[in-house]
Amino acid sequence: MKKLSLVLIGMGRIGKIHLNNILRHFPQVQISGVADRDYNPEQFAREYGSIPFSRDAKELVAKPEVDAVLICTPTSTHADMIRLALEHGKHIFCEKPVDLSLETTKQLVDQVQGSGIKMMLGFNRRFDPDFLHAQRQIKEGRIGGVQIVKITSRDPGLPPIEYIKHSGGLFMDMVIHDFDMARYIMQKEVKEVYARGRVLVDPKVGEAGDIDTALTTLIFEDDSYAVIDNSREAIYGYDQRLEIFGNKGMLQVENNLHNRNIVYDKQGIHQSLPLDFFMDRYAASYLNEMKFFIEALQNNQPIPVSGQDGLEAVVIATAAKWSVEKKRPVSIAEVKAIL
Amino acid sequence: MKKLSLVLIGMGRIGKIHLNNILRHFPQVQISGVADRDYNPEQFAREYGSIPFSRDAKELVAKPEVDAVLICTPTSTHADMIRLALEHGKHIFCEKPVDLSLETTKQLVDQVQGSGIKMMLGFNRRFDPDFLHAQRQIKEGRIGGVQIVKITSRDPGLPPIEYIKHSGGLFMDMVIHDFDMARYIMQKEVKEVYARGRVLVDPKVGEAGDIDTALTTLIFEDDSYAVIDNSREAIYGYDQRLEIFGNKGMLQVENNLHNRNIVYDKQGIHQSLPLDFFMDRYAASYLNEMKFFIEALQNNQPIPVSGQDGLEAVVIATAAKWSVEKKRPVSIAEVKAIL
Amino acid sequence: MKKLSLVLIGMGRIGKIHLNNILRHFPQVQISGVADRDYNPEQFAREYGSIPFSRDAKELVAKPEVDAVLICTPTSTHADMIRLALEHGKHIFCEKPVDLSLETTKQLVDQVQGSGIKMMLGFNRRFDPDFLHAQRQIKEGRIGGVQIVKITSRDPGLPPIEYIKHSGGLFMDMVIHDFDMARYIMQKEVKEVYARGRVLVDPKVGEAGDIDTALTTLIFEDDSYAVIDNSREAIYGYDQRLEIFGNKGMLQVENNLHNRNIVYDKQGIHQSLPLDFFMDRYAASYLNEMKFFIEALQNNQPIPVSGQDGLEAVVIATAAKWSVEKKRPVSIAEVKAIL
Amino acid sequence: MKKLSLVLIGMGRIGKIHLNNILRHFPQVQISGVADRDYNPEQFAREYGSIPFSRDAKELVAKPEVDAVLICTPTSTHADMIRLALEHGKHIFCEKPVDLSLETTKQLVDQVQGSGIKMMLGFNRRFDPDFLHAQRQIKEGRIGGVQIVKITSRDPGLPPIEYIKHSGGLFMDMVIHDFDMARYIMQKEVKEVYARGRVLVDPKVGEAGDIDTALTTLIFEDDSYAVIDNSREAIYGYDQRLEIFGNKGMLQVENNLHNRNIVYDKQGIHQSLPLDFFMDRYAASYLNEMKFFIEALQNNQPIPVSGQDGLEAVVIATAAKWSVEKKRPVSIAEVKAIL
Repeated sequence: MKKLSLVLIGMGRIGKIHLNNILRHFPQVQISGVADRDYNPEQFAREYGSIPFSRDAKELVAKPEVDAVLICTPTSTHADMIRLALEHGKHIFCEKPVDLSLETTKQLVDQVQGSGIKMMLGFNRRFDPDFLHAQRQIKEGRIGGVQIVKITSRDPGLPPIEYIKHSGGLFMDMVIHDFDMARYIMQKEVKEVYARGRVLVDPKVGEAGDIDTALTTLIFEDDSYAVIDNSREAIYGYDQRLEIFGNKGMLQVENNLHNRNIVYDKQGIHQSLPLDFFMDRYAASYLNEMKFFIEALQNNQPIPVSGQDGLEAVVIATAAKWSVEKKRPVSIAEVKAIL
Repeated sequence: MKKLSLVLIGMGRIGKIHLNNILRHFPQVQISGVADRDYNPEQFAREYGSIPFSRDAKELVAKPEVDAVLICTPTSTHADMIRLALEHGKHIFCEKPVDLSLETTKQLVDQVQGSGIKMMLGFNRRFDPDFLHAQRQIKEGRIGGVQIVKITSRDPGLPPIEYIKHSGGLFMDMVIHDFDMARYIMQKEVKEVYARGRVLVDPKVGEAGDIDTALTTLIFEDDSYAVIDNSREAIYGYDQRLEIFGNKGMLQVENNLHNRNIVYDKQGIHQSLPLDFFMDRYAASYLNEMKFFIEALQNNQPIPVSGQDGLEAVVIATAAKWSVEKKRPVSIAEVKAIL
Repeated sequence: MKKLSLVLIGMGRIGKIHLNNILRHFPQVQISGVADRDYNPEQFAREYGSIPFSRDAKELVAKPEVDAVLICTPTSTHADMIRLALEHGKHIFCEKPVDLSLETTKQLVDQVQGSGIKMMLGFNRRFDPDFLHAQRQIKEGRIGGVQIVKITSRDPGLPPIEYIKHSGGLFMDMVIHDFDMARYIMQKEVKEVYARGRVLVDPKVGEAGDIDTALTTLIFEDDSYAVIDNSREAIYGYDQRLEIFGNKGMLQVENNLHNRNIVYDKQGIHQSLPLDFFMDRYAASYLNEMKFFIEALQNNQPIPVSGQDGLEAVVIATAAKWSVEKKRPVSIAEVKAIL
Repeated sequence: MKKLSLVLIGMGRIGKIHLNNILRHFPQVQISGVADRDYNPEQFAREYGSIPFSRDAKELVAKPEVDAVLICTPTSTHADMIRLALEHGKHIFCEKPVDLSLETTKQLVDQVQGSGIKMMLGFNRRFDPDFLHAQRQIKEGRIGGVQIVKITSRDPGLPPIEYIKHSGGLFMDMVIHDFDMARYIMQKEVKEVYARGRVLVDPKVGEAGDIDTALTTLIFEDDSYAVIDNSREAIYGYDQRLEIFGNKGMLQVENNLHNRNIVYDKQGIHQSLPLDFFMDRYAASYLNEMKFFIEALQNNQPIPVSGQDGLEAVVIATAAKWSVEKKRPVSIAEVKAIL
């Protein structure tokens, strides 16, 4: 079988995770090149030997043998990179979100849909083994019809204020993962959003025009609910849990702790904290999502997270933002009306 | 020391719990009489010996030696019983709620406040040892400033439709406990309510004009949040949990299981379900709240749950009901404006 | 139905537990008298009103209307009290052990067996709801044929050295409960014992001729095993757990914690310690065992813990003591040979 | 820095784990060759490309550039392979045990000790992140002086009877890991062993001259204890737990479950079973132990598991075997006397 040929663009933290995962775990894949505008070519050569490296993505994407492009650059460049891949007829793996602008997202997703090109979005949490298993159990009816989903999603600490300024805001940058998770678990569309948000962690977040704490209610098309609570800073670490209530049972996904040791002393019973760095917490997810992407391409099967999924998440994030501003529920139809 | 003299009115389930608790655990208390319109006097004599029994509450409440009246009758008679106790200058323990009508509640609470009479409301959950301990830990700053409270409150099964018809509705009958819990934990007042509710358990609930599933967001005066999810039927039993997120930590109160046994077999690891009957689940609460009431009277100290607490809970319940009807957030001020 | 008439002897901690439990929970029982050599009669009258009190047990036991005697005096007097009850043809509830001497125990148990008198021994842990449930599940085959039982039994702290001197030693005083538990869970007899013991908590224990830490292996007649580890001082509280391994599964009984609250902070995830006072930990057991005793008498049914059970536990304790001294396994036959 | 050059001998399950781990995670290591008597060279070339492959270990070990040899062949060949490595002055990583014969083990360990060659034994469990963390916490005094160690070690199912016949028996094949774990946790030497063993899982094990269930007590030189229970078949999976009791606290290492999902339904609360294949359960251990080995060689530091550690484990296993046969405790001195 011919090896699948991939080009990776963007050697930041996520790009390196994907590159290392592919090199270690997918012998059936050929990395035909890596592009990054800033990475030092000598360092790259030392680290990755003979893999072709370029400062210019175009040069690599254009290669005829390349099957797909992995876009791991900053969000502001996603649109250009997607267009570049489309131009050359390459399949796409793109980190979330497609774009901070709703209109651009819609346009790109439409373009992909008409093209025959497969585009997968990096909503990595779907591929976390625990969440994946939960979703499958729900699909199989383990807890009956789902009535209420509760998502806890709290970051271990504030990112740099500079990052926040260009992040698109809490809903677009952070909660978007949870919006996707809610849709993934429910396998239904959201029809209305009510969100409250405020600055509790650091006033500098407010000065940067953003919020750091939020509580969002999603109403699905069949009137089932999801409620998501978010904070940029949980002092005890990265808190990522699910609780799904159905008419035949309830399913919880608990945190993944540093270790399974329990200490009893005079003060109490103590366990370790949750894994607190997203790259540790979701190490298996990143590997898993790449596996799904590669297999979908090799077997010509549907992509598990489509551009449309990305668009829906951005629409919900927009509704949430509007809801905070307008201090009232906002319907999805209201947001989609501007598209 | 003179024994405290109590009269108990209403020999339903709750009345019996209180009567038995007092007889078993408070030797410093004298039961000067028990009234019930329907209870068989011969049966009462067999069960409780020489305790004076009457079909007429007035006769017992009027006794000069009586210090306080325990009102355990149906909600519709609370107002009359409270007035009776006030007339004779007796302290009051009254099961929640004071009344289904907001106006009557307000009027009675005002009347009590001006009278020098102590009235305690039976929000028993405050006295559950776990919730009590949680509240104390929060007060002592164990988790810092509280930002988000999550209350899970799911009943093990639907009460009879006949009961639901006269219950005042889900918010007034069931969620009112959670509204009180939220205020108790936060030690702050609510300023706004957003609630969604629907019929998921049984269409007969809808025919009776009520809902059986709800999701309520409370906004407190300092913009902190509480979110409460309710169902009349959790197939796995009575689900009563708290999660409180603060800037220095997080506190969870877990369910109280039938036993502490864990079975491992070929299918998995199995534990017993939560205690599923409210009288088992809250057995310690009922005992504890009576202890607090009796001690407050004997030491002439403030009552731990006042009429004002009862009023606030009814106001929040009304706001929640309005929010479902109006499909928008409702401010507490909007409800209080009609008083 | 005629009330069951009981006399209670010994108003120490355990005596009071039983007395209060009976007064509160068994209206079908009449306490016909309480005897104690040291208790102040005025104080007793203040606390228990009109219940007949005497410094002389004989006087009360001799009353013709008395059905049974509860022996809650120090171990050294058990034999005399049992003989007194037998003399007057009264049923017996006796705190464990029957006697520190194996010979006396054997003699008394034989005497009871020939008499038509029912004697129940206070191995209260059998009646703990969790252990009771575990035993029933095992009996019903929930985990198949039992192969290995592991008992953790650690006290929260050293009793006074004076107590230890008259306790009969660690095996007879403390581990005897675990020997009974092993037999209760397995429903089989022990054939061999291997024990190791030493002084780790306080050298004064050694000076008093006892040990404070032990590890005991029991071999049952069918070659299944139990292993028991004991310490007089677990700094984190009273540690009472079971693990039972069978060919179809495994069953664990976990500790009963002070509360069900979990706190997450910067240092870790924290839970409360196990209930650390035996009267709290086993509150339900004491109530339950009295219920079984009363019901067995009222319905003329077999006693759930017989004198023979008491004898077997003392035999095992003796074998364990010998094993430590002789530094080798000791067979039960070897101990029974001296009887 | 010059790459470390390794040769791997034996392409069975463990050999492949090590080979893949090195290729994926240790770019500073050069695999200079792989030897296996039976592996198909074409298949090897397809799987591992240009890595030199040979049927003859000697040819590879003799290469002057080779720094160390990884011995992953069956136990019966370990001695020869160790001698081969010693002959050529290569460092050694050898899967446990060194040899089934005590005498040969002693002789080889002595030989290594006099040679300047580093030999590390593959007691992989020491490198499991949870056990490693536990050992460090104990070393740092987290639970004070250790008094009792309890090791649960139950396999998910019987290996083929053919395997058992050549395994050296339960103690030498399976429990040896636990003997090493006990020494590792306690950082002390064992002075006496008492073991009981029997056939409970399958009579064929008995016909093969072995046992499948055992309970072993270890007495350490300072009279502290360890107790180990083993079964070849825990129906609920691979059960690998530790409990360590000290005078300042207690530490438990719990199993590693398939997932962190919890399902509540009408029957109870359910969790997934422990990881049940040793290569999954100890995936991180295998990687970790190789990291320790490689770093010890590169930094010329002491090896974390020495030949002496291997010898001690074999001595304890021998004492356990004798104890079962002789039905009495066996001292380590008694075993060492034959060396």
